[in-house]
Amino acid sequence: MSANKRKYTQSLDLVQGKVEMAHGAGGKAMAQLIEQLFIRAFDNPALNVQSDQAMLALPDTAGLASGKIVMATDSHVISPLFFPGGDIGSLSVHGTVNDVVMSGAKALYLSVGFILEEGFPLADLKRIVDSMAFAAREAGVAIVTGDTKVVEKGNGDGVFINTTGIGVLPEGLELSTDQVRVGDKVLVSGSLGDHGVAIMSLRENLTFETTIESDSQSLDQLVARMIDRIPDIRCMRDPTRGGLAATLNEIAGQADVGIQLQEEAIPVKPQVRAACEFLGLDPLYVANEGKLIVICPKQRADELLALMHDHPQGADAAIIGEVFEDPNHFVQLKTSFGGMRMVDWISGEQLPRIC
Amino acid sequence: MSANKRKYTQSLDLVQGKVEMAHGAGGKAMAQLIEQLFIRAFDNPALNVQSDQAMLALPDTAGLASGKIVMATDSHVISPLFFPGGDIGSLSVHGTVNDVVMSGAKALYLSVGFILEEGFPLADLKRIVDSMAFAAREAGVAIVTGDTKVVEKGNGDGVFINTTGIGVLPEGLELSTDQVRVGDKVLVSGSLGDHGVAIMSLRENLTFETTIESDSQSLDQLVARMIDRIPDIRCMRDPTRGGLAATLNEIAGQADVGIQLQEEAIPVKPQVRAACEFLGLDPLYVANEGKLIVICPKQRADELLALMHDHPQGADAAIIGEVFEDPNHFVQLKTSFGGMRMVDWISGEQLPRIC
Repeated sequence: MSANKRKYTQSLDLVQGKVEMAHGAGGKAMAQLIEQLFIRAFDNPALNVQSDQAMLALPDTAGLASGKIVMATDSHVISPLFFPGGDIGSLSVHGTVNDVVMSGAKALYLSVGFILEEGFPLADLKRIVDSMAFAAREAGVAIVTGDTKVVEKGNGDGVFINTTGIGVLPEGLELSTDQVRVGDKVLVSGSLGDHGVAIMSLRENLTFETTIESDSQSLDQLVARMIDRIPDIRCMRDPTRGGLAATLNEIAGQADVGIQLQEEAIPVKPQVRAACEFLGLDPLYVANEGKLIVICPKQRADELLALMHDHPQGADAAIIGEVFEDPNHFVQLKTSFGGMRMVDWISGEQLPRIC
Repeated sequence: MSANKRKYTQSLDLVQGKVEMAHGAGGKAMAQLIEQLFIRAFDNPALNVQSDQAMLALPDTAGLASGKIVMATDSHVISPLFFPGGDIGSLSVHGTVNDVVMSGAKALYLSVGFILEEGFPLADLKRIVDSMAFAAREAGVAIVTGDTKVVEKGNGDGVFINTTGIGVLPEGLELSTDQVRVGDKVLVSGSLGDHGVAIMSLRENLTFETTIESDSQSLDQLVARMIDRIPDIRCMRDPTRGGLAATLNEIAGQADVGIQLQEEAIPVKPQVRAACEFLGLDPLYVANEGKLIVICPKQRADELLALMHDHPQGADAAIIGEVFEDPNHFVQLKTSFGGMRMVDWISGEQLPRIC
């Protein structure tokens, strides 16, 4: 590595430079991009070996030696690339870390695959890469291997990022929708709709008194705390694309149950609600990138809620519903006016390129 | 899962249907696509759970319990999507499996991330997915988790595929460019340039007496055999983008050595050589997708070569060069005429979107 480094005496122009086809061509320009941008930002022993694969020691810490690893993948195509509360870089770390930790696992390693459009400013790429590196450090994960491809102008859209994550499961832990039972409580870790509304407001050029920020964040710490104290949690999911509605319909179908929600219990920020009304969106269908849904036995719900409230990532957590017997797997909402309405899957396109 | 399945009574039109924005929107259409296309094709227990992550038991087979796992990622943007000898689907499996097994590991699991362009024919997607499934079965890997995004027409190019792979290392095995020593022999597993020339011929609409086919294949079986019988192999690499030249320059730099090649020993098929001359390409710089470079101690070279010859994937293997002391890390070629020429890195774009 250090020997190899000497080859790239020319420095990458991270201020004015642009992505060129050569940056994906397997030659010196690509090696230079990897050396001077990615490796510098993601710096860790497994990545720095610069092999085509990452060699990963599984930690032999007691409690992590169950022999079960967890892998999750997400491609990110969000538009615009930069938004209040984050960017495609931080989002690509948060999204995959959250997918891993929803299983109860501790996230350890990430891979990253970039698809770059010819002509994309390197300064923007650096900003994205730095943001990924920061998000990875915060979540305690190492980005251990990567790949870069470049497509001609007009055949991509700036940057697409795939992240794939690996984690290890604490011994004996098995969260699954199979564990869900009638009578269980449904909790959410905080207010809904922030991410999707932040992006749509930006696209529509809406301004409100306060800027609506994406909730994009890694939930690793909150999850670790929950798992540690309430190991009989049934299952967790992060309500991303399709929002709460899609996630609960998925759970209801897999668990062979119905779910009834209390509308007034569902936390939605006033400015998010106002923006939703303006944009014609329903916050229950809007993507979140830093929230989780958790289902737990009825008798543990209050304890779990208190525990979540104690952590900044769960400060606005709420018990929002209950699991019922229902062969139709309906998710229903008891409205503030006492009526009931169906919370069905969205049936088509709602918010394109929201993550 | 089975409960959930009942929801999608409408069948996906895999003949006339097209990818719609809804296929990436997190709702029913996306669930339908996953159920009726991906899960049917990739069918395996870890994937079928349909959670956001794959839970993976590490095999406790003796010899695989070293506690080291290997992870590799590759995004594939090849154009055209279908070519003689393969397609983006098979390539995306072969490419990542090969990256994993070059470490000496046994590849076990793959994740897949699709970025689809609105309007892409589902029939083509099915062809690609079936091809991935076949390639995965052949290589003995399971595609255990995935993600699908859709971008608007004009912001992508049909299909981009990220695959990320996980493998486990046999106990005690440690291949690395650090192990390379002066005097070591350099071998290649077969003829060079087939993949790149197949793609370029297709793009340029060239026809030859025989169609040049990509060499795209998973090298897992050949590698397992090599590792098993000659565990003192120094290192292996697959010469993909940038070809033999890029791979050997990378090794020379990392190992702090020089490499000298014998031009006449390097296997290149006559029709590939002819096409290269026609296209103005040098086969040493052209991408391969089913070949490996291996460096081994001088005294094991003949045994390794015989072993490779015994396997169909190594039938045309050859000893092509030797490792020298060289603080400049030059890769040089002794030509058939007795002269020497530098085999430098390609310095810019050569073959865009070759993988």
